[in-house]
Amino acid sequence: MSINFRSDNETPVADAIWRALERANQGTAWAYAEDRWSERLDDAFSRLFETDTRVLPVATGTVANSIALASVSPPWGTVFCHRSAHIFCDESGAPEFFGNGLRLVPVDGADGKLQPDALEQAIRASEGHGVHSYVPAALSVTQSTESGTVYTAGEIGALCKVAANRSLATHMDGARFANAVAALDCHPADLTWRAGVEMLSFGASKNGCMAAEALLFFGHSELLETAERMRKRSGHLLSKMRYVSAQLLAYIEDGLWLQMAAHANAQAHSFAEAMMRHEEACLAFTPGANEVFVRWSAEGLAGLHDKGVQFHLWPGHDDLARFVFGHSTSAEETQALIDAFDG
Amino acid sequence: MSINFRSDNETPVADAIWRALERANQGTAWAYAEDRWSERLDDAFSRLFETDTRVLPVATGTVANSIALASVSPPWGTVFCHRSAHIFCDESGAPEFFGNGLRLVPVDGADGKLQPDALEQAIRASEGHGVHSYVPAALSVTQSTESGTVYTAGEIGALCKVAANRSLATHMDGARFANAVAALDCHPADLTWRAGVEMLSFGASKNGCMAAEALLFFGHSELLETAERMRKRSGHLLSKMRYVSAQLLAYIEDGLWLQMAAHANAQAHSFAEAMMRHEEACLAFTPGANEVFVRWSAEGLAGLHDKGVQFHLWPGHDDLARFVFGHSTSAEETQALIDAFDG
Amino acid sequence: MSINFRSDNETPVADAIWRALERANQGTAWAYAEDRWSERLDDAFSRLFETDTRVLPVATGTVANSIALASVSPPWGTVFCHRSAHIFCDESGAPEFFGNGLRLVPVDGADGKLQPDALEQAIRASEGHGVHSYVPAALSVTQSTESGTVYTAGEIGALCKVAANRSLATHMDGARFANAVAALDCHPADLTWRAGVEMLSFGASKNGCMAAEALLFFGHSELLETAERMRKRSGHLLSKMRYVSAQLLAYIEDGLWLQMAAHANAQAHSFAEAMMRHEEACLAFTPGANEVFVRWSAEGLAGLHDKGVQFHLWPGHDDLARFVFGHSTSAEETQALIDAFDG
Amino acid sequence: MSINFRSDNETPVADAIWRALERANQGTAWAYAEDRWSERLDDAFSRLFETDTRVLPVATGTVANSIALASVSPPWGTVFCHRSAHIFCDESGAPEFFGNGLRLVPVDGADGKLQPDALEQAIRASEGHGVHSYVPAALSVTQSTESGTVYTAGEIGALCKVAANRSLATHMDGARFANAVAALDCHPADLTWRAGVEMLSFGASKNGCMAAEALLFFGHSELLETAERMRKRSGHLLSKMRYVSAQLLAYIEDGLWLQMAAHANAQAHSFAEAMMRHEEACLAFTPGANEVFVRWSAEGLAGLHDKGVQFHLWPGHDDLARFVFGHSTSAEETQALIDAFDG
Repeated sequence: MSINFRSDNETPVADAIWRALERANQGTAWAYAEDRWSERLDDAFSRLFETDTRVLPVATGTVANSIALASVSPPWGTVFCHRSAHIFCDESGAPEFFGNGLRLVPVDGADGKLQPDALEQAIRASEGHGVHSYVPAALSVTQSTESGTVYTAGEIGALCKVAANRSLATHMDGARFANAVAALDCHPADLTWRAGVEMLSFGASKNGCMAAEALLFFGHSELLETAERMRKRSGHLLSKMRYVSAQLLAYIEDGLWLQMAAHANAQAHSFAEAMMRHEEACLAFTPGANEVFVRWSAEGLAGLHDKGVQFHLWPGHDDLARFVFGHSTSAEETQALIDAFDG
Repeated sequence: MSINFRSDNETPVADAIWRALERANQGTAWAYAEDRWSERLDDAFSRLFETDTRVLPVATGTVANSIALASVSPPWGTVFCHRSAHIFCDESGAPEFFGNGLRLVPVDGADGKLQPDALEQAIRASEGHGVHSYVPAALSVTQSTESGTVYTAGEIGALCKVAANRSLATHMDGARFANAVAALDCHPADLTWRAGVEMLSFGASKNGCMAAEALLFFGHSELLETAERMRKRSGHLLSKMRYVSAQLLAYIEDGLWLQMAAHANAQAHSFAEAMMRHEEACLAFTPGANEVFVRWSAEGLAGLHDKGVQFHLWPGHDDLARFVFGHSTSAEETQALIDAFDG
Repeated sequence: MSINFRSDNETPVADAIWRALERANQGTAWAYAEDRWSERLDDAFSRLFETDTRVLPVATGTVANSIALASVSPPWGTVFCHRSAHIFCDESGAPEFFGNGLRLVPVDGADGKLQPDALEQAIRASEGHGVHSYVPAALSVTQSTESGTVYTAGEIGALCKVAANRSLATHMDGARFANAVAALDCHPADLTWRAGVEMLSFGASKNGCMAAEALLFFGHSELLETAERMRKRSGHLLSKMRYVSAQLLAYIEDGLWLQMAAHANAQAHSFAEAMMRHEEACLAFTPGANEVFVRWSAEGLAGLHDKGVQFHLWPGHDDLARFVFGHSTSAEETQALIDAFDG
Repeated sequence: MSINFRSDNETPVADAIWRALERANQGTAWAYAEDRWSERLDDAFSRLFETDTRVLPVATGTVANSIALASVSPPWGTVFCHRSAHIFCDESGAPEFFGNGLRLVPVDGADGKLQPDALEQAIRASEGHGVHSYVPAALSVTQSTESGTVYTAGEIGALCKVAANRSLATHMDGARFANAVAALDCHPADLTWRAGVEMLSFGASKNGCMAAEALLFFGHSELLETAERMRKRSGHLLSKMRYVSAQLLAYIEDGLWLQMAAHANAQAHSFAEAMMRHEEACLAFTPGANEVFVRWSAEGLAGLHDKGVQFHLWPGHDDLARFVFGHSTSAEETQALIDAFDG
């Protein structure tokens, strides 16, 4: 047996997305995002988010995040994020590269979540003395978080309010945005622009697509030109962008994105419930979406590996493991995982 | 009628490549190029090129070119290329961005081709006075060229010899490398490492793939680690890299890449022959691969547009047009293009 | 005998400047340009130039040029300059470094001077196709030129008009601005903002100061904040800036700068006249300020070196030499140079 | 009365340094550090430090620090420093700019000092997962510290040992290095290369010079070429470098640097002793060099300002003040400061 709970970015492409790719693969199409799929993105996302939205399709979340932050921060600007944020821990300095040396300021917070007070304090501590210091420039919030938790709309609003009071731009890293929306059963606008988020890295690759992300600008269309320049200059303007855009259109059509996310969340939920009943293992965080973090003995976790369960240990810890559930995770696989804990 | 000769990067994905993508789309696969397709690339390309080859799969030619040049040039280094080179004209400064301000030095040359003497002279003119000047660092040759011509192995060897004498690294932008190999009917090694080329941007997107390029290092494996860092840091390490690598493997398997290129070249050849017989239009360059440049009256060319022929005029010229033939260009489309010139 | 005509940047500090430094060296003074000398700069230069002028004092011309260009060009912008310009030939890519990969476009022109037509043509040739290309961003004119010639106010106006028509910002590299003003006997405003120049690297180090340059913004005070950030971030905000500012104030007080420049020009003029009478040697360019370029046999020039005359040969040429005259060049030294040609 | 204890970088130039500048101001001298003062630096500093030392003279400490760190860290490298370090708090991202986006990792520690355990832990926490993470690259220690304390040779050795075990390069920010050496009454080699420090930003501007710092490489001459490139490319290669080098030579001749530092330290010591006897005010840190941090009531400190005492409050605190003593601080001024506390 071998079942893979390492990451949702290891799942295959969903059938509906695949068929959309096939449909896009007919004849020629103009290159460099001048195709008829790419040209529909602004409208489609504006409808989805119920506000004027400009869309920059790209192939990875890292470039979406990096362009977003570099669009709003000068090289001498600071970007505040949670200490566990992907932009801080896992992008090898891409934001710093695109932002020509901007600085990320990690802020601690339980359950992978920023707290308004801690954010306020971090910003104040970063306000310096004129040209000698970096200038607070932006906030980046991850939804769902790197701990598998989710922010409520109210929590996001509170963070964005702190940012707005200090004239910081606001960005959301939504690599798993779909899972958060599905979990909270709310409107995507409520978690973003209505709560004060100005830019969203709207992830799709982890939830059924092949390589498709969208950087969304809510009502800040003046940033788009710079963002397009950065996309090109960083080698991210795919000539055959139609395939990225076709994925994105199919993804948000008829609620597919939320159905897939809800499925993944449900699997995670089943597993989490089993863990709550487990005699030894326990949940490290309250799971809010499609990731479940479990504390168990090193021996117990190692035993799972022996049984063919693939997953990641938390860096530097042999008794803390992450299990990620995807659109393609079957109920049988989830049950097999639960069984592996018990047997 | 609408037929598209704008660019081969507007063609769809070839059937064989599509089937390879489908086969890769089974179950989960490890992310970030640790999948079983990506791990076969070094071997597959080493066999194809008959030498130890390290492969960096990426999604665009611009990032392949930029990483290659930034790997071998310091920020204060110059890279010599033809004045029409894609890296100089069409990448919006991506090499300068990745290379932290390295400088491209354009060199003139007929038919889109660099000449050894002109290269030698340009290098000498760039050798300055100590720290006050840039340092000559690399040569970048485009094969096939931006004028649709091709370098022979001997011509490439002569350029690389000039470079080697001055201790310059050597790179080939092979966005249409397949077309050049097919046209010259030679071994790919003869046009690259055997002629002195150290790095090759091996293009596949224009010739039947969706978004797949490979930066190849011939025997300079020490550069790979830096290149991998740059790929990650620029947001180009796709999580689902299996789909890129699966394209590349299928592309070079059983000579598919050369069959597709040969088809495109043959269409270009048919068209070029028709142009040579045309009473008014004439060839601007001797076509060597799959691009044909035609001089004709502005009225004549405008008439083509009216007939539904899609193509690009050369920037700044209304009497010089480029027609590009791809793996999916049918003989009927080519004939329709020829007919449009006549009637 | 050893007389030095290598460069005016090898001259000592003038007495009047030295005394100003001594006066500034009393007691403590606030650091980082908050001293009472630095705070007088805006007023002093606004009076000198008869317009609202913001002053950024720095220690080198390279940083003045680089900050100016990076202030007005995006990373994907081009800056047009003469092929012999210091920013292109002698700053090792400092503009590219500060400008995060902006591109310099060299334009040819006789006598070290840009011509409006050639500039227009270069700009047009650089206007590309959307995000794929760099965007024309700025013009940089060198006054006096690297060939020792000078632009008239009318010539500068014509160049700036071409730039303005294309929405380019305008910069003057005035490392030897004083010599040009003295030679043309005009008002400094006529050669700068009245002719359309928006930013001036106002040089003083070559003409009697120790290390003092001023980047001037004429009526573009919105650029100052960014410029100040760049100065700090590049390590150019001297803590004891009072010494730089004190030099600048003394330099422009009571016309000292023009007196020193006029002296240097006069020495150059004497030498140039002798060269015009020389039987073999001849002037390479019509000297307009304090530099004289002489063509002579390689043997003749080598003989000068043997006689203890220090000067630079033009890179790559053994029959073309540059002689630079400074504020401290005595009439005796000039005569000795002339004699060396004759004997 | 107005007495200035804001910073030692607000002091004037010492007489002996001034005379050295005057001596250097005779006749012409070759530009760009090819003068006879600059050429003596390697020997003079090698003698002073009793080891082969390469010297890069520059005008500011920020550029010395930045070039040092950019010389040894890739763009994806981390540099560990104390949270109060100048490079982290006061240089507006200059290390990030020169280092193309390298990352500084602040480490907490009492009294402005790094502790080996905390350093070890920070390095371990920064060791990531392959290309996804930054790579630990360098340690930067400040001596004397931003809290006015000093590291013993043993303490520095212990930190450098942690760094060496992790293959990190080692740098010392010695803006007030003289004060530390004078305070510890040890050999400068003991605090640097003998303890494992590879690069030293040797400060002189704060201790009697006008604008003179030296970046020293102890036995890593291979880094010098890159460092020289960075100096030029950042606009820091002064044409009249003789004046910087002449300051440096005079500064280290006959122990002048230590005499001036000892004087400043003695003034600080007198003041600190008075504070220890004060009924309300108290020392925030144990003063080790020429800076004294005092905690007192906000009213008390405000009262000092009213009496004409100039000093800085700690950012964000109105009851914590810093008093800096320089080479030119007179015993009378120190006494006046003490009196101001009492009256």
